Amino acid sequence: MSALSDPSQIDPTDPEAYIAKAAEAFRNWGRWGEDDRVGTLNFIDDSTRASAAALVTDGAVFSLSQSFDMDGPQKGWRRRTNPVHTMLDTGTDAERGNQGFPHGIGGADDVIAMPLQCSTQWDGLGHIFDRGFAWNGRRAGDVVTSDGDLVTGIEHLADRLVSRGVLLDVGAFLRPETGELEDGYAITQADLDACIVAQGATSEVGRGDIVLVRTGRLSRARREGWGEYAGGPSAGLSVTTAGWLHRREIAAIATDTWGFEVRPNEFDVAFQPLHQIVIPNMGLTIGEMWDLDALADACRERDRWEFLLTAPPLPITGAVGSPVNPLAVL
Amino acid sequence: MSALSDPSQIDPTDPEAYIAKAAEAFRNWGRWGEDDRVGTLNFIDDSTRASAAALVTDGAVFSLSQSFDMDGPQKGWRRRTNPVHTMLDTGTDAERGNQGFPHGIGGADDVIAMPLQCSTQWDGLGHIFDRGFAWNGRRAGDVVTSDGDLVTGIEHLADRLVSRGVLLDVGAFLRPETGELEDGYAITQADLDACIVAQGATSEVGRGDIVLVRTGRLSRARREGWGEYAGGPSAGLSVTTAGWLHRREIAAIATDTWGFEVRPNEFDVAFQPLHQIVIPNMGLTIGEMWDLDALADACRERDRWEFLLTAPPLPITGAVGSPVNPLAVL
Amino acid sequence: MSALSDPSQIDPTDPEAYIAKAAEAFRNWGRWGEDDRVGTLNFIDDSTRASAAALVTDGAVFSLSQSFDMDGPQKGWRRRTNPVHTMLDTGTDAERGNQGFPHGIGGADDVIAMPLQCSTQWDGLGHIFDRGFAWNGRRAGDVVTSDGDLVTGIEHLADRLVSRGVLLDVGAFLRPETGELEDGYAITQADLDACIVAQGATSEVGRGDIVLVRTGRLSRARREGWGEYAGGPSAGLSVTTAGWLHRREIAAIATDTWGFEVRPNEFDVAFQPLHQIVIPNMGLTIGEMWDLDALADACRERDRWEFLLTAPPLPITGAVGSPVNPLAVL
Amino acid sequence: MSALSDPSQIDPTDPEAYIAKAAEAFRNWGRWGEDDRVGTLNFIDDSTRASAAALVTDGAVFSLSQSFDMDGPQKGWRRRTNPVHTMLDTGTDAERGNQGFPHGIGGADDVIAMPLQCSTQWDGLGHIFDRGFAWNGRRAGDVVTSDGDLVTGIEHLADRLVSRGVLLDVGAFLRPETGELEDGYAITQADLDACIVAQGATSEVGRGDIVLVRTGRLSRARREGWGEYAGGPSAGLSVTTAGWLHRREIAAIATDTWGFEVRPNEFDVAFQPLHQIVIPNMGLTIGEMWDLDALADACRERDRWEFLLTAPPLPITGAVGSPVNPLAVL
Repeated sequence: MSALSDPSQIDPTDPEAYIAKAAEAFRNWGRWGEDDRVGTLNFIDDSTRASAAALVTDGAVFSLSQSFDMDGPQKGWRRRTNPVHTMLDTGTDAERGNQGFPHGIGGADDVIAMPLQCSTQWDGLGHIFDRGFAWNGRRAGDVVTSDGDLVTGIEHLADRLVSRGVLLDVGAFLRPETGELEDGYAITQADLDACIVAQGATSEVGRGDIVLVRTGRLSRARREGWGEYAGGPSAGLSVTTAGWLHRREIAAIATDTWGFEVRPNEFDVAFQPLHQIVIPNMGLTIGEMWDLDALADACRERDRWEFLLTAPPLPITGAVGSPVNPLAVL
Repeated sequence: MSALSDPSQIDPTDPEAYIAKAAEAFRNWGRWGEDDRVGTLNFIDDSTRASAAALVTDGAVFSLSQSFDMDGPQKGWRRRTNPVHTMLDTGTDAERGNQGFPHGIGGADDVIAMPLQCSTQWDGLGHIFDRGFAWNGRRAGDVVTSDGDLVTGIEHLADRLVSRGVLLDVGAFLRPETGELEDGYAITQADLDACIVAQGATSEVGRGDIVLVRTGRLSRARREGWGEYAGGPSAGLSVTTAGWLHRREIAAIATDTWGFEVRPNEFDVAFQPLHQIVIPNMGLTIGEMWDLDALADACRERDRWEFLLTAPPLPITGAVGSPVNPLAVL
Repeated sequence: MSALSDPSQIDPTDPEAYIAKAAEAFRNWGRWGEDDRVGTLNFIDDSTRASAAALVTDGAVFSLSQSFDMDGPQKGWRRRTNPVHTMLDTGTDAERGNQGFPHGIGGADDVIAMPLQCSTQWDGLGHIFDRGFAWNGRRAGDVVTSDGDLVTGIEHLADRLVSRGVLLDVGAFLRPETGELEDGYAITQADLDACIVAQGATSEVGRGDIVLVRTGRLSRARREGWGEYAGGPSAGLSVTTAGWLHRREIAAIATDTWGFEVRPNEFDVAFQPLHQIVIPNMGLTIGEMWDLDALADACRERDRWEFLLTAPPLPITGAVGSPVNPLAVL
Repeated sequence: MSALSDPSQIDPTDPEAYIAKAAEAFRNWGRWGEDDRVGTLNFIDDSTRASAAALVTDGAVFSLSQSFDMDGPQKGWRRRTNPVHTMLDTGTDAERGNQGFPHGIGGADDVIAMPLQCSTQWDGLGHIFDRGFAWNGRRAGDVVTSDGDLVTGIEHLADRLVSRGVLLDVGAFLRPETGELEDGYAITQADLDACIVAQGATSEVGRGDIVLVRTGRLSRARREGWGEYAGGPSAGLSVTTAGWLHRREIAAIATDTWGFEVRPNEFDVAFQPLHQIVIPNMGLTIGEMWDLDALADACRERDRWEFLLTAPPLPITGAVGSPVNPLAVL
């Protein structure tokens, strides 16, 4: 195990040093050419998709999306609100004859205003920068301006997020009684490896996979209320898993938490160091706030942890994130 | 051929009579129980999905979504605008050190405000009413109020829109030179049947299928500019195809046009009569503004018109429509 | 004192009876003609405005508006959020040369999404209905549909809200030590009359005046944080003041609270009964969440409680409320 | 007349040279201290306001605001749309009993999404930069980031925009038959001076005044439709009026056009050079898209061109502009 993967060797007072080393060690800049816009999603190709589709057996389907509504976790941090959905036309007006349409047709229509990361979502590659640099070594100010992400906008991922999905139910593996990791628990690469062994061969993780890590954090929010789900303490991946994520050559990863990585972070003064290492340096696409609970039950029931996963973002030009309704088909 | 399916028997001065008869003839109210919220999507089950996944051969994937941005077709009709995407944080600020984060991390974040039917979308079952009634015989004012669709909201379709997709390239079939039907051309059931015969067995349409009808209207908009794409003249389905849609027991249908049905409509004074017949009465889910061009090329190349289609809406609570990025995997 | 004005005669178990009687007693329907759209604002005319302007002595000016930003009182009740202000262009981009303009010009531009009643605001006459009826006896569904207020939209008040303003600092009058009334304190007509006597002749209230009632609720929120400012307990006008508001022939009234009237309301199960009486029946325009603190200090200092008040709403077509930045000039 | 004020001496091929000279000549940086946030609004003080109020004679009032609705001039330039106003609750729902409130109360509520410069508005001092610098010599990136205008946000003008208003009806003065200047007509300082002489002493312009210049452009839009009102050709102030604006020590200026200055601009390749000179350098607050037509009629009728003007922006924290409903009281 390299020092970067060993949690006991982290110096909590010096995030800069750790991040600098890890960023360099796991950097994929140039790996797919200077013009690359999609990073590790390059690990997915036609044959990956064909194999993934071949995993479908019984045809059961699971939506991995939380709701998009006012009853959500957002509390205004960095102006992130819950979505505001309003009606342009309603059935009440239609029924009353208020709409002015001919031959008895009536309509309802609606509008939404929402942060792109308010609920179940993908982080685009333009979402995070490392010391002024974005994915593939571009300067942050050349990539994302007030006009949006001019280079790695989420629209470039429109047809990229179909692959083999693998669920690692780390919550159930480590805490079999509750299925829920405690806040602040940092999932290590040893935990991931052990979970794979415990779940068996269908949960092996390799090139092009989209890995889903269940911590149980959403199950608790569902039971206890949102509380500090958005931005507060939570289990999540240790900053030391960057090497594992790199070595396995996964295409993307998603969790059932707000922030993917453990919170509070593993340095005294820090903010999302694993994001800083893996998004701009490794080119890894990250999903957050996914709902993995029903899927976990279904996988456990079938003792099968792999499936076809489709999770296309909306091709919003220049977006650095996108809401998504991921589907797992077993 | 029944009178309702015969375009020559339409009385253009009397939409009310035609709609009333067709609505009754093709009504599915109660077919899936009084509490049903999803209509013809009931035709899809696990085995449909398993068979659909088995269609995947080479693993090529196509996003059928148009862009979501200010350069879109909307011109304000019924307050439908193009999406407005704005940034909460940018790379320019990150690069300049304006963000106040520790250890060199920087971030970009964004917000969108958009009508749910501004670009590629599904019409929910609460989108259209027939003489004050919504899907399954409910009163419109009991279903869609200012609080949204309380009964058939799009969130109920979250895991429903995975099935066998079939592309009928009617544009290319009827106009082989251009691939584009002229505005006002009403596609009949005879056209659909003949297109299926011409394309061959892989384009046969049956229970649970999601049918995609390409008219070529979007190809023209791409070439000539949006013009009147949103709401103006266009080829589309004839009101007389309602019987065909009903008889084939399809799950859903989508086109590359703004309005799915032919425009101007086939009555002297009318507005979207086919919507009025098939959404509230038949319970049919309709997709609009899909981009079918690249998929059509791929199908033609392979002489194969069927594929796995996943097109989950965002589960926006109470929405009567949803943006969608549909994926076809061949 | 009539029974309707006597707090001791309220039956807290029977809001319906009280409201029905008060609505009838203080109803102004037809008073300004069948087509009237502005209610008691008819009490203001040119001479009112000329006299109001003549009150200006030293020229000191006070903005009575709270901020419009994310740090506001809204917590999502009925989808009311705090305003979300985002940038379309920034100085960071301009400075970096990211904007593509000639000769060194740079620009910043911005967008807002906000409920019209998120901060300092006027309630339009279409904001509240009484048993299905709106101001002047119109049916609610004929007035406010999904298209907005078709009859009494706030745009009709565009040039109406200029008059003599009178501040009644009831908080300071009743609680001289703190200047703040306790939550649930119902201000009676006796309190109002006594406050006028105490403050002296410049606070006399009559036809066409815009009356500002300070409770001290905002002062506390400023000190303690927003807490339950929006919708929670607060001092405010007693439902029994409707007669006083009617008799004095005021043009409009505003307070420093979320809800104008006392909360909890004075019936066991109730919601804003005074609104129900005075908006649709009396035609009274009500302001909420005004900041009266600095103005109160200035009035006290000068021993003068009257001033020129200008408080024009934004003429948003069909709106049932409007943000406003009211100015008092002394 | 200095060279900068002489239209005949403009070299249309060299905007940079002209702008550099004019910016330096008319720069007010430091004039009101290093911390100043309001620029020429410092010319207004208590006595200015007291004198302005004393101008009120008959009490007639005029709203100078255009509508805020979908039928507006915006066509999407730099993502500026017309305002989208939607309802959270309606009278139709209230009348039908859909709202769940007690004792027969019903409510309507609404939301707006709009660019802050979509209709009648003030440009804040953070709206325009000159070669990377903002008002008072600050670097643009220190002033306006994605978080808004951190220094000169429009909230600092909340109580500043009350003063003597003076209307110069240049359209009627120069084109007495139509009252409308032709597109591209550049109003010079000679035009302004001659208009003042023609209108008489009540239109004299001096320190602290808010000057309103009517071109007739809006009258034409009202008659012919919006067309290119937003951003297209229009009469407006010549870039050579900067010296006049500086010398007169006005507090603010507003016009009935989209862009205040003449369009096309007076250089071959240019964009709003007068903005670049007067906003960041002079610290002048500019109003655009004001409706001056009814006021012009009233002034002409009275042969009096001065009045009390109140035009407070909404105190939106960090905004670089604000919608406004200006009121003139005669």
